[in-house]
Parts: sequence; structure tokens; C-alpha cells
Amino acid sequence: MENNGIAVDCMGGDYAPEEIVKGCVLATDEYNLKVFLVGDEKGIKRIIDSSKVKNRHLLEIVPAEEVISMDEPPSNVLRKKNSSLYIAGKLVREGIADGLVSAGNTGAVLAVGKLIVGATEGIDRPAIAVALPNPKGKTVLIDVGANVDCKPKHLVEFAIIGHTYAEEMLGIKNPKIGLLSIGEEEGKGNELVKETYPLLKQTRLNFVGNAEGRDIYAGTFHVIVCDGFVGNIILKTSESLGMAVIQMIKEEVEKSFLAKIGAFLMLPAINRFKKKADFTEYGGIPLLGAKKPVIITHGKANAKAIKNAIRVASEFLHTHFNEKLVENVKKLAPAEARI
Amino acid sequence: MENNGIAVDCMGGDYAPEEIVKGCVLATDEYNLKVFLVGDEKGIKRIIDSSKVKNRHLLEIVPAEEVISMDEPPSNVLRKKNSSLYIAGKLVREGIADGLVSAGNTGAVLAVGKLIVGATEGIDRPAIAVALPNPKGKTVLIDVGANVDCKPKHLVEFAIIGHTYAEEMLGIKNPKIGLLSIGEEEGKGNELVKETYPLLKQTRLNFVGNAEGRDIYAGTFHVIVCDGFVGNIILKTSESLGMAVIQMIKEEVEKSFLAKIGAFLMLPAINRFKKKADFTEYGGIPLLGAKKPVIITHGKANAKAIKNAIRVASEFLHTHFNEKLVENVKKLAPAEARI
Repeated sequence: MENNGIAVDCMGGDYAPEEIVKGCVLATDEYNLKVFLVGDEKGIKRIIDSSKVKNRHLLEIVPAEEVISMDEPPSNVLRKKNSSLYIAGKLVREGIADGLVSAGNTGAVLAVGKLIVGATEGIDRPAIAVALPNPKGKTVLIDVGANVDCKPKHLVEFAIIGHTYAEEMLGIKNPKIGLLSIGEEEGKGNELVKETYPLLKQTRLNFVGNAEGRDIYAGTFHVIVCDGFVGNIILKTSESLGMAVIQMIKEEVEKSFLAKIGAFLMLPAINRFKKKADFTEYGGIPLLGAKKPVIITHGKANAKAIKNAIRVASEFLHTHFNEKLVENVKKLAPAEARI
Repeated sequence: MENNGIAVDCMGGDYAPEEIVKGCVLATDEYNLKVFLVGDEKGIKRIIDSSKVKNRHLLEIVPAEEVISMDEPPSNVLRKKNSSLYIAGKLVREGIADGLVSAGNTGAVLAVGKLIVGATEGIDRPAIAVALPNPKGKTVLIDVGANVDCKPKHLVEFAIIGHTYAEEMLGIKNPKIGLLSIGEEEGKGNELVKETYPLLKQTRLNFVGNAEGRDIYAGTFHVIVCDGFVGNIILKTSESLGMAVIQMIKEEVEKSFLAKIGAFLMLPAINRFKKKADFTEYGGIPLLGAKKPVIITHGKANAKAIKNAIRVASEFLHTHFNEKLVENVKKLAPAEARI
């Protein structure tokens, strides 16, 4: 059952299908994994044929005639049943594939994850988590975009999903959970946070209290919970700030010859840092709480990112993440917060 | 009326009263401005006497016996009528001083700003704006913490306040306004954003549409509007990310001798960048829409930050910010969004 392979939407993403197909080839070569390549049959075949392939028998093309474009309304995917994304989702739903990877229209991937693949037992709202790097390790931020308007019970779900993610995927035992707010004390925050706080206290989670924006990259919590609107904005702000800092330092360095030499000498250190912070190194973002792994990568995902996303999907299966999650919902949730 | 001087809460902030008083001295020396130093009379006098002071006649001590601590509930300030913060607010309310500067308990400063100093004509919710640096210039983010749970009409107010701030304080004519969301298209976002979008379209503001997290440091908008919960988290996340990046690069640099030399050669460029991005260079954050300038500085504000905050308060008076704001509310707001 767990060696069925991963379904990859080869038509989604800015560099589809080339980079996506190449990523599938890299994954089969490196991890000896079966991959279903869903999309334009001829195009996919041509890219495979022009690549160096070690494990050709692990690459199975599944034809799909339609494509969900990056900018069309996500709900379209539920009508476009011949789209590569829908068919990839159906392969998972029917148990033919064990997981889904797509670099396509994020909203559409989420819709397929929630409605075609479906939520796992005890979970109402699958969520997206991301493990952000900090000097001490990583902090899981959840939800970062799957659920825009949330109720307190959904944030409790995210906390349990985040706990499970930190334990199973990052090896952090009994992770410290924080609720994202704008002040440490109970009672600080917006209505959603104020109603969620007492519910989280009733769980058996290692709930420490409110976290603030400054905790996100400080390593003070292992898991930080927020609604998907706030989480998505944090994630995108972080990317933007990183780029702005590099750009502004670059402009200053350009003004001085010595600084240019300095920058050159620092390059290996900077590159090691970049590798630590590099999104593509970590693979895609999983939709946690879906019945089977659904991995959403950046729209600009290249072959390496796709390879890593396929690895992430496969790792999910090996950790039995969903079984642990179902167990944790029963074990950790307060009766009041149960769905 | 406008040369009455600025009231400074000398007892608020992590480095009060020393750094605060020294900041007042720097401001009177550099800008030839009158300052009311509110707080422990003896302590303040001792610090002034031990400083080099050019304009002693511009420093007026106003005694206050109580102190609002950094961690007490903000609402306390309304009962502690002998606190330095309350008395400083009263000096402004009564027209004795023209503006207020405090590095103290932010919630308490906000309460004094909203309730003692009071809101200006046509404004329901004074808000905090911050001008964030980016490679192209600055982007005003508003609100960053004064209003946690907001209605659509409040976000429209913030847009008009932000517009006025960009025009009057940053010299940006007809600034491009964005509504912070998680997708560009109208209809993307949470309920608050979806209801605010059509209201903003009805204004005479240069409303461009939704902004995303990645726009905040990209310079694509001049003003980005959000509720104070989201804005505060963005601000604090940004600080935390900046520190984490520096820390992680430092650790990588430590591993290599050449990289250390490189870092040394780059130092002047890095310092120029830091100066651009340095919070203290920009002075404090104004509570916009209050009847008179109320400037909230970081709790860790040093003398330089206080000096700059006093300058910012004084600049507000010279630009006639509030008069322009009252005008803009009448001119730009749609009838439906009027308070």
C-alpha cells in the first residue's frame, strides 16, 4: 500500500512541465521511488527521453488533457475533471497513488487536497505548516494559508496538527506550543485569540501561552499557531524582507571596492547560510490533516524543489504521520474542542 | 500655540529616566525646542545637572509621583492620575504642551493618546503607522497595533490617515494604497478584507487593490492598510527575522578565517545599511489621528531615539498634519464610510 508511489501534477507551476518532469526523474533516481507523472503525455515523454534516467520503470505517465492555470479561480478545478491536478488528486483518492505533489495554483491544490483527497479522521480543517529556520533550530508556523477565516476550535486543531508535525517530522518531543498574538499575557490579542487561549489551556498539549511576532524567528517556541490569513502574510513578508535586505546591502557594497572584496570572501559563508534558509532545500509545504500527503511547492519550484517535495511526501508515509495525528486528536484535544 | 513645546514622559521605557532625560537635552540643544520633562523631579534634575546643557531654559520639569510600569495593564493609567504618562497627556489636552513622547507601556500610551489627548475631528480610531524601508524608498504600514479588532470603516480611516501621512510626512503625492490580503484579486482574503475592498474603491484615494505580504518590503505600494493585530505581528516578525539572519550569518562567518576578513571589509557597507534600516534613526511611531502628536517609541529607546521622537512630534506640528487629515476625511471618504 505504501509503495504505490507519488502522483505529481506535471502541468502546474511556472516552469511546468520541464522542471517538474526533471524533478520526478531526479526523485526516482535518488530515492528509488515510483512516480505518477500526470499531464500532457507527449510532452512528458519527450522530456523523459531527453533526460538521463536510471529508473525508467518507476516513471508512469498518466495522461491528462486539461490544465489549471496559475491565475484562474481555484474552484474551477472541481469542474475541470480532466485537468492534471484533478486526476492526480483522484489517483490518491482511489488509493492508486499514496501522495500528491503540485507546484500549481495554490488555491486549486488546496481545494483538491481538502475535497478530492479529503480530510483525515477527527480533522475538520487540514492546514499548511512551514518549518521556519532560526539560530536554535526550527519553528513550525501553522496555518500559513489553507484557512482564511477560522474559529477557535480550528486553531486548536492546528495546534494538534503542529504538535504532531514537530514530533513526527522534526523529532521534537512534546513541543512547546504558542498562540500567535500581540502580547504575552492571556487576554492580549484579537477576539479569535482571546477565545482560543482557554481552549488550548484545556488540551494536553505543551501549551506555553501567547507567542509574539518576535518569537517566530527566535526559536522560543517549537510550534506557533495562527489563522491562515495571518500566517500567509507572515510567510510572504519574510521572503520579501529577506530579498530587500540582500538588495539594500548589495547597493551599499557596490559603493566600495574593499566591501566588494569583503563580500567575495564572505561568499562561502553566505552560501552556507542561504542553504540553511533555502526554501527549495526543504521541499514543498504539506497540507497536514489530509487523508494522504498533499505537498504544495512554490510556483517557481525547479527540478530540485520538486525532487525534495516528492521526498517529503514519501517521508510522510514512513512516519505514519496521519495515524499519529488521529491518535493525538483523541489523546490531546479537550472534549469541548472536539469536532 | 505651536511653540508650547513637547511633553516627554521621563519615567516610561527600559532605560528611564536616564536615557529619556538625556534625549530631551539632546533635542533642546539640536532643535532649539522646548521640552516638558514629566516625572520624578529630583531624579530628572540630577540627570540634567550632570549633562552638558546648552539650552537649560528650554527644559521645564513637571513633577509626577507615580509611574506606569512596562507590564501593568494599560487601563491602569486612567486611574493613576499622578503618573508621569497621565500628566504628560493632560499637559497636551489642556494645550500647555503641543505633543507627547513616551517610551513606556505601549498600551498605556495608546490609552492616553486616544482618551486623554483624544481623537481629531472625523476620526474614530487613531492608528499607528510605520514607514518601512525598501530598496525604492519607504512603505507606510498602518495600523501596526493601536486597533486589534477592526471593522471595514476603520480600515478606510487607516487608508485616509496613511494617505495623509505619505503626502505630508514623506512627500509622496497621491500615494498608491494597498489593502493587505493573501491574493491580488478582489474577493481574495478574509471577511474583513472582502468587505473593505468595495468601500476603498468608492473613496477618492489612489486605491490600487490588494497588497500581499511580499509587497511590504518591495516598494510596490506607498501605503499598505491592515488591522492592528496583523500589522503588529508583521512589525515584530520583521525585527525578529532581521536579528535571526544576522545571527545565522555570523555563525557561518565564524567558521572561516577568510569570511571573517570579508566581514571586516564589508563592515562600513553593512553599517550604512543598518543606518538606513535603523529604527532609532527614524524616531518613534506616531499615533495618527490623535488631536495632537503622540509619539510612541520602542521600550528600549535610548537618548538618540528620544531625541528623534521629539523631532518627529515637532515636525507633525509644522506640517499641519491634523488639519490636512481633517480635510482629507471630508474630501476622500465615501459617504457610506463616514463615521
